[in-house]
Amino acid sequence: MSKSIFYHAGCPVCVTAEQDIVDLAGRGNVEIVHLGNDGSRITEAENAGVKSVPALLTSNGNVLHINFGASLEEVKG
Amino acid sequence: MSKSIFYHAGCPVCVTAEQDIVDLAGRGNVEIVHLGNDGSRITEAENAGVKSVPALLTSNGNVLHINFGASLEEVKG
Repeated sequence: MSKSIFYHAGCPVCVTAEQDIVDLAGRGNVEIVHLGNDGSRITEAENAGVKSVPALLTSNGNVLHINFGASLEEVKG
Repeated sequence: MSKSIFYHAGCPVCVTAEQDIVDLAGRGNVEIVHLGNDGSRITEAENAGVKSVPALLTSNGNVLHINFGASLEEVKG
């Protein structure tokens, strides 16, 4: 199985959700991407269908938007 | 670790999210509750902090609201 990718931007909602997702899936099964620190991956996230963070891109390509931290437009600043 | 509980109400968004969560956590680690079929558990869900479905109540008591299917008020009908 390919990894899931958890996109976030460092907001408090994101950090809590990150811990919960890692607990659920196991740390080795989730790649964590901080779009605030790594803006080069925002386009990749958008192309995958991510509209807001935190979001989880599952290994089969679905995007689960979790709670609501910030839209990608806000992350781009 | 106690189980996580995935609350949903049978909506298309819920069913997709359910499959993704089960894939992520493993079927044995998540209890699936269909609030449309099992209305007796709506109060339990509300008390846990669930505002809309689909939602995942993690084993440490956090609620992750995933995408947006329906508010609990809509589920109550």
